[in-house]
Amino acid sequence: MADAPAPGASKPAEQPAAAAAAASAGGEEAGEAGPSKKALKKAEAKAKKEAEKARRAAEHQASQAAAKAAAGNTEDLAKDSYGPVLPATKVESPRVNLKNVDESLLGKPIKLRAWIQNSRMQGAKMAFVELREERDWAIQGVVAASPEGLPVSKQMVKWIGGLNLESFVLVEGRIEKPLEPVKSVRVSNYELHITKCYLVAKGPEVLGMGLAVSNRPVANFDDEEPASGAAADAAVEEATKAVEAASLEPGAVLPSASMATHLNNPAMHKRSPVQQAIADVRMTTRKLFAEYLDSQGFNQFEPPCLIGAASEGGSNVFGLPYFDKQAFLAQSPQFYKQIEIAGGRKRVYCIGPVFRAENSNTPRHMTEFTGLDLEMEIEEDYTEVRDMLETTLLYIFRGLNERCAEQIALIRTVYPSEEFLLPQPGKEVRLTFAEGQALLRAEGPEEYRNVSDDEDMSTPQEKALGALIREKYQTDFYILDKFPEEARPFYALEDPVNPKVTNAYDFFMRGQEILSGGQRIHDPETLVARIKKKGVDPDSPGIKEYVDVFRSAGVPPHGGGGIGLDRVVAWYLNLPSVHLCSYYPRTPKRLTP
Amino acid sequence: MADAPAPGASKPAEQPAAAAAAASAGGEEAGEAGPSKKALKKAEAKAKKEAEKARRAAEHQASQAAAKAAAGNTEDLAKDSYGPVLPATKVESPRVNLKNVDESLLGKPIKLRAWIQNSRMQGAKMAFVELREERDWAIQGVVAASPEGLPVSKQMVKWIGGLNLESFVLVEGRIEKPLEPVKSVRVSNYELHITKCYLVAKGPEVLGMGLAVSNRPVANFDDEEPASGAAADAAVEEATKAVEAASLEPGAVLPSASMATHLNNPAMHKRSPVQQAIADVRMTTRKLFAEYLDSQGFNQFEPPCLIGAASEGGSNVFGLPYFDKQAFLAQSPQFYKQIEIAGGRKRVYCIGPVFRAENSNTPRHMTEFTGLDLEMEIEEDYTEVRDMLETTLLYIFRGLNERCAEQIALIRTVYPSEEFLLPQPGKEVRLTFAEGQALLRAEGPEEYRNVSDDEDMSTPQEKALGALIREKYQTDFYILDKFPEEARPFYALEDPVNPKVTNAYDFFMRGQEILSGGQRIHDPETLVARIKKKGVDPDSPGIKEYVDVFRSAGVPPHGGGGIGLDRVVAWYLNLPSVHLCSYYPRTPKRLTP
Repeated sequence: MADAPAPGASKPAEQPAAAAAAASAGGEEAGEAGPSKKALKKAEAKAKKEAEKARRAAEHQASQAAAKAAAGNTEDLAKDSYGPVLPATKVESPRVNLKNVDESLLGKPIKLRAWIQNSRMQGAKMAFVELREERDWAIQGVVAASPEGLPVSKQMVKWIGGLNLESFVLVEGRIEKPLEPVKSVRVSNYELHITKCYLVAKGPEVLGMGLAVSNRPVANFDDEEPASGAAADAAVEEATKAVEAASLEPGAVLPSASMATHLNNPAMHKRSPVQQAIADVRMTTRKLFAEYLDSQGFNQFEPPCLIGAASEGGSNVFGLPYFDKQAFLAQSPQFYKQIEIAGGRKRVYCIGPVFRAENSNTPRHMTEFTGLDLEMEIEEDYTEVRDMLETTLLYIFRGLNERCAEQIALIRTVYPSEEFLLPQPGKEVRLTFAEGQALLRAEGPEEYRNVSDDEDMSTPQEKALGALIREKYQTDFYILDKFPEEARPFYALEDPVNPKVTNAYDFFMRGQEILSGGQRIHDPETLVARIKKKGVDPDSPGIKEYVDVFRSAGVPPHGGGGIGLDRVVAWYLNLPSVHLCSYYPRTPKRLTP
Repeated sequence: MADAPAPGASKPAEQPAAAAAAASAGGEEAGEAGPSKKALKKAEAKAKKEAEKARRAAEHQASQAAAKAAAGNTEDLAKDSYGPVLPATKVESPRVNLKNVDESLLGKPIKLRAWIQNSRMQGAKMAFVELREERDWAIQGVVAASPEGLPVSKQMVKWIGGLNLESFVLVEGRIEKPLEPVKSVRVSNYELHITKCYLVAKGPEVLGMGLAVSNRPVANFDDEEPASGAAADAAVEEATKAVEAASLEPGAVLPSASMATHLNNPAMHKRSPVQQAIADVRMTTRKLFAEYLDSQGFNQFEPPCLIGAASEGGSNVFGLPYFDKQAFLAQSPQFYKQIEIAGGRKRVYCIGPVFRAENSNTPRHMTEFTGLDLEMEIEEDYTEVRDMLETTLLYIFRGLNERCAEQIALIRTVYPSEEFLLPQPGKEVRLTFAEGQALLRAEGPEEYRNVSDDEDMSTPQEKALGALIREKYQTDFYILDKFPEEARPFYALEDPVNPKVTNAYDFFMRGQEILSGGQRIHDPETLVARIKKKGVDPDSPGIKEYVDVFRSAGVPPHGGGGIGLDRVVAWYLNLPSVHLCSYYPRTPKRLTP
């Protein structure tokens, strides 16, 4: 035991990641950064970048040569304890996940597989490496050469300290207590005294985007997918250097990269704890949706993406050649949910991609997104469906608070947001569209003093109403019911008592629409009449086949709704763009990665 | 109580559905059928069909006029207990699901919402209607006029007996015991003595496809999507009449409709118990997959459908105009699963649509189908992934046996199949590809005496091997491992010991492939070398971005597999076509409904 660093002998690496890297002998990301860099023109930056690369390569060669020379002079007793992983490499200590490290492991050896997210040399005989296992689960590793050269030699320390950042390594070490908590990593009360380290997958000489930048809020969403990566590379180089510069001044604000830079560096974008936390919230939302509906007797089903007719109006639909025909990509599963009901299923839901060929480059739009849809038989009244949708969403919100508390807290450190206010049970807010408009006229901003009960709302109007409702009812989640007939599609059922409005509603989060739904027309004659009223030919392709379903067998009254998953996640977390919630956002400008 | 039929007073409707319908006064589906009908030419059939329709309409008018006249003569005391449902219609009895009907309800009134799947008049004062609530949950309803006209009048009996088949009704009645079990319905030990009946949604005068036909095995899969429905209509008319004719002879085999007819009548296709049971098996399979992987620490994620480059070879890919660019539909989530691993997720899975523009009209092919995909880090050896996939599938098979026993039994009454044989725990069958070929050479049919260890297998070869393995190992589920290098794509890792084979495998069910998987290359240099070896340009669109991911950060060893959901369900149930498992099958010939 004497030949290893004593527990707590090391100082925790308190410097921010990039600073530590700059101090490291191996020198990834270690540029000579200064505040004047930002002023340099792009051409200069590029030339500098290449010179810098050459310098690093030369340094690397020199250090390897030095290491070899050193190895030639004194025998490396630890030579089997480090180096590239080989088929024969075996590490026998028990595999322990970092989240399970506790007092019981003190002094015991464990095996770890992790990324090097940071490293620095302290003199020639000691190195610190931050080892990240998953998301933000990292521990400080310490490796110190013992005078005897066993179990750790100087050569081994140098080799480990010189590994490129984001390399993946297989490590063996002892769990020990640091002198004081290591603030820069999550497993701050322990450190790992490394006895073996093998390189499984090598990180690059220069990272396209460092982890620290990747975990900062995205700077802007004006995404341009570059023809070559050169422009993006330059931008990241700039940002990375600025991080290094800023991190030398304590308390300085770290800069961010653009969404384009993030998406052009998918591995590093996805390795950031904030993106993994958002992904967790997204998939938990999806799971809670399914879980609740399963408990309510719903059957999941799968609507098609490829359809034969652009049935819902025909605008904003992607078309494609399909053998000797034309096909389209479904804009919603609306017709298919209804066919399932016609086919004798009482309650159905589906979760899947939908497509809109809308040339909108806003933080609210994508060309491919995930729909959470349900449809159910109505036994007595259309409010059965509305209330089922409401209960489903409340189940999701409460479930997220319980199951993703840790992720939500983590996300707020990067994207701050106010608590999402939920209504008290029994005090859910369900206004009619007309009541909402009246509220806007009475208490809203000047420009909404004359809003009409018969016309659909604009996005700014919705936001203004959301602010009023939050103030009045202390909730960020509410329903506007009984939308005007003119604002709803041909399949919406008009209120039998007041045909100027429909049995249809929108749901809102923080003043933004996340759900549209309502009762559908189940009687074919009524359906044809309303199709005509909307100026659509009931015999046009797609429409005729749709109406025929209701003619082919008696279809009970039914209704449903469609929820935009991306929006629910984005507005719940109050993120600046839905593009942050999507695994692979698709916009008019972007189809990669 | 005296004015209602006494419990058990009625004879159960033992005749098959169509025969009962033929005997009914209302007369849906009641043609004058005979064995010579099949010989008639199509033109004649069409003319006859129209004449028949006219006759039915005339009959209908006449019977309505008679009812009116009758009502004029004697006051209808029960007139508020039947008729079209109105906004004011209320039925106060408790709503009971048919699966919950038991002795405790005897003599008590319940409310039911159901489809009329069959009906017949017995004289002028009594009618029997089969009421189906969901899938195969149906009960016999009895309605008999009392001399006093209350609670049931002659007019009411006539109206109920004359309702079109597959109309949806709201019914009130008392649960009673029949004299003997009603074999034609599932709830055979009870019957419902109807006291109120309201029409919620009217079925058509003539059904496009009757429920009995819909629940028969599909006759053929040579699907032609007709320009108009006329040809299909004629075919169904033919089939329906044949059913009626056959059902008059006890023990006669009922005929079937073609897949085209089924798909052109989606509501009736989906109302058949067999299709609902298949749907249940499908969604349970999907659920079991997710459930098991969730328990093993996997994260679900969502790959895109729209992609920027036809990266996997470029053949059989759908392309489409995408604003000023070209987009493609993903053929698999392969690259995206790997990006998730590169992005720091240890274990991922996804469930979603994938697309193949293959002009194949076989029972094994569709252009859109559902993939169940997983990918995971490999810690020590590629068999970790192979074994995870194997355990996942065994979990699915055992789960289906438990959770879908009822559905599987129901499906076997329509599509008979032998038990799907599973290996004994600990006796799983994992042969190498070479061992499989050796078995074929030694014990297979003559034509496989010279099969090679270096070439991929053909479909008939696979089936022959499946038969040998079933005989030898008593299992329908097995693995062929270590596929030859030539038979695997560029991302497959060659066996470090024997580079003529790969760390890749296929899984089989009843001799048919349902899964491909293996270890992927995680080192960018090895990847580029193999891409070149496969004759692909590593700088081509899609490929370069893919390789760059592995250059951008150290990516740990990983592997995975892709399962075809449609195939798993079809081969598990031994169905004649994957088209039966899909909610909305897409083939080169079909894009509707």
